[in-house]
Amino acid sequence: MSLLTEHRSGTVDLGPAAALSCRECGQRYPLSPIFACSECFGPLEIAYDLPAGDPEALRSRIESGPNSIWRYAPLLPVPADVAGKPNLNPGGTPLVRADRLAAELGVTGELHVKDDSGNPTHSFKDRVVACAVEAARAFGFTTLSCSSTGNLAGAVGAAAARAGLRSCVFIPHDLEHAKVTAAAVYGGELVGIEGSYDDVNRFCSELIGDPAGEGWGFVNVNLRPYYAEGSKTLAYEICEQLGWRLPDQLVVPIASGSQLTKIDKALRELITLGLVEDKPYKIFGAQAEGCSPVSQAFKNGHDVIRPVRPATIAKSLAIGNPADGPYVLDIARRTGGAVEDVTDEQIVDAIKLLARTEGIFAETAGGVTVGVTRKLLADGVLDPSLTTVVLNTGEGLKTLDAVSPTTGPTAVIRPDLAAFLDAGLA
Amino acid sequence: MSLLTEHRSGTVDLGPAAALSCRECGQRYPLSPIFACSECFGPLEIAYDLPAGDPEALRSRIESGPNSIWRYAPLLPVPADVAGKPNLNPGGTPLVRADRLAAELGVTGELHVKDDSGNPTHSFKDRVVACAVEAARAFGFTTLSCSSTGNLAGAVGAAAARAGLRSCVFIPHDLEHAKVTAAAVYGGELVGIEGSYDDVNRFCSELIGDPAGEGWGFVNVNLRPYYAEGSKTLAYEICEQLGWRLPDQLVVPIASGSQLTKIDKALRELITLGLVEDKPYKIFGAQAEGCSPVSQAFKNGHDVIRPVRPATIAKSLAIGNPADGPYVLDIARRTGGAVEDVTDEQIVDAIKLLARTEGIFAETAGGVTVGVTRKLLADGVLDPSLTTVVLNTGEGLKTLDAVSPTTGPTAVIRPDLAAFLDAGLA
Ligand SMILES: [Zn+2]
Ligand SMILES: [Zn+2]
Repeated sequence: MSLLTEHRSGTVDLGPAAALSCRECGQRYPLSPIFACSECFGPLEIAYDLPAGDPEALRSRIESGPNSIWRYAPLLPVPADVAGKPNLNPGGTPLVRADRLAAELGVTGELHVKDDSGNPTHSFKDRVVACAVEAARAFGFTTLSCSSTGNLAGAVGAAAARAGLRSCVFIPHDLEHAKVTAAAVYGGELVGIEGSYDDVNRFCSELIGDPAGEGWGFVNVNLRPYYAEGSKTLAYEICEQLGWRLPDQLVVPIASGSQLTKIDKALRELITLGLVEDKPYKIFGAQAEGCSPVSQAFKNGHDVIRPVRPATIAKSLAIGNPADGPYVLDIARRTGGAVEDVTDEQIVDAIKLLARTEGIFAETAGGVTVGVTRKLLADGVLDPSLTTVVLNTGEGLKTLDAVSPTTGPTAVIRPDLAAFLDAGLA
Repeated sequence: MSLLTEHRSGTVDLGPAAALSCRECGQRYPLSPIFACSECFGPLEIAYDLPAGDPEALRSRIESGPNSIWRYAPLLPVPADVAGKPNLNPGGTPLVRADRLAAELGVTGELHVKDDSGNPTHSFKDRVVACAVEAARAFGFTTLSCSSTGNLAGAVGAAAARAGLRSCVFIPHDLEHAKVTAAAVYGGELVGIEGSYDDVNRFCSELIGDPAGEGWGFVNVNLRPYYAEGSKTLAYEICEQLGWRLPDQLVVPIASGSQLTKIDKALRELITLGLVEDKPYKIFGAQAEGCSPVSQAFKNGHDVIRPVRPATIAKSLAIGNPADGPYVLDIARRTGGAVEDVTDEQIVDAIKLLARTEGIFAETAGGVTVGVTRKLLADGVLDPSLTTVVLNTGEGLKTLDAVSPTTGPTAVIRPDLAAFLDAGLA
């Protein structure tokens, strides 16, 4: 494949990205659409030539950039002119000072919610997909693809539409109609696969190895090393929004575990670059009890993740065999954090608590992080006197079914004052 | 009521807001929670002491403000310290350069979509409600209320939650369950009224006049003059995002007509203040054919709006007797614009066109503005060579039903390459 050869000769411009590097054995590879080490099968990640020199110059370069993830282009595998290309410009989402939630939870320090429902398709997936689009462009791919059961399908469809790329997304054939509509409206190909989500993934792997898949960028497979880096921007934004300061404690949801590992990577980069003062921080991972393999391993003191069959309302976190689980365990232990899980009922309660106190309607993944925060505080694991940031990575409108059985009108009355007064609403 | 007396003596701090002024007869009233002129029953609006002097100083004050509507606090009826109070901080939504949509529509000038689905509860209502919250605080109200059939209920519930106010929202008892859930999740009172939306409004008017309604701020009734000003921020943002430049043409949806009149007001303010160069602009109003009283009056050359019974999928624009309709006619005629309407089928087509070209999934109101833009271009009414801004005021996830009957998977296949190739998807 001539395009690939060209990349291997080093003409790919992905900004500060210098090479791919094996997370296990350190073997380096030229930037190309590969994702596993041919020596040890370890996952590949981006190695950078990060900007050296004066932190103040870098900081003011960032601060004068656009109000999107592209202000951090000097720290991402994207070309310097990325902001001028058609893309969804995700990021710049609110860090909400959550004083009313803090009061209910007994937090006396600063409590913040990073609300990523403000992204273009209302989940953090827009961040990672935007980075994958740049990689797809750099490698000359013309079709953007993925397997998905929800958020990612819409994020890929929308990003491809804006970028002028073809998209072809694979979903289980029995996905709820509302999710299908929200993904199909962007006009790309949306293909239902007769089988489970595992069958969809197996099919995608087959397609990547086949000539039929030539020119296809699967955001979370052959573009995964580039894609995953988008999660770093969550940490960059949090620290900048705190006034270039590290939080003391972060509570992060775990699906594959990739997001949590990239947040840790980004915090260490900010320290290395001198953009924040070096001090300890703790990272806490959050899972749903019905899909808690990392939490179970953490509590049992294991290094190996035992796969589970997911059964939880938190569908966007329902990965039974999380690829980055072992790295999550390392990070939780190294930073002095923890991994915890909550029941579906606690997830729903937490969604309502966040909505009632801060006016943020989170998807089930946000219920998981808020619920775990509450549990860790009750157990004395989180320190209530410190600065804590809780992530909400998606939008409640996408998981209405989780709360609708227990959410309804306070009262139904006739349209007159007597009925109103009788109902005790005055 | 002692609070009201106090306000009348002039202690209300709502920033540059100086008084209420009758739009019809010009009679002035002290800032207070009233909405109709006692002389002529005309609607009241805010009269300002706007900042005099150096436009550059004002511009740089705005530019150094927060990335929300509060950067325009010097031009709004809110106290100067508004950004420091707990609120949803709406605004700062993207102005999207829509080159792919432009190409499909034959636009050769700049085409932009102002995408207000990026607001906290994903509609422009967050802008107006945020201003109503400040008025409620200033007048000592403790309950925030409204009648609503959708977007507004969620916006009020969320804003009250963040602000720590009680909320009590009135809805027709037969509202779809998904909309009820999305409004009720914020934990305020949500009261179903046995009757139509008209019955709900009648009941609210009754409550405002009764002692049981003391301390209640109805955002779109007794707080309406303050609330409505929030729409000005759409125009401020558009001009600032264009580099402090007026667009040549704007396409704005019409429900009550308030938003369009406030956009015009804001553009004239920017000219008066010297923040943009004075030049002509045209404002175009957009309605659904199934609720097009203003469009009908415009086309027939009438000054009076003849009320209709709405029958359209664009529920958020379905106001059959739009209060500000006559003012909309004045503005469309004065600026050289027009008012046009599109069928439900054209609305759905336009939603899909915008999603397919720009990755923006709009609610039905956005389908109305994009559809009307397309129609006005085809009819030669909009000039394709100029700078045009089209408003999308809401989020497609809230009106999934509009597109779901005609949106689905491209294909459903077995999980193997042969089936994939047979389907012609490679
Ligand atoms: Zn290796
Ligand atoms: Zn009057």
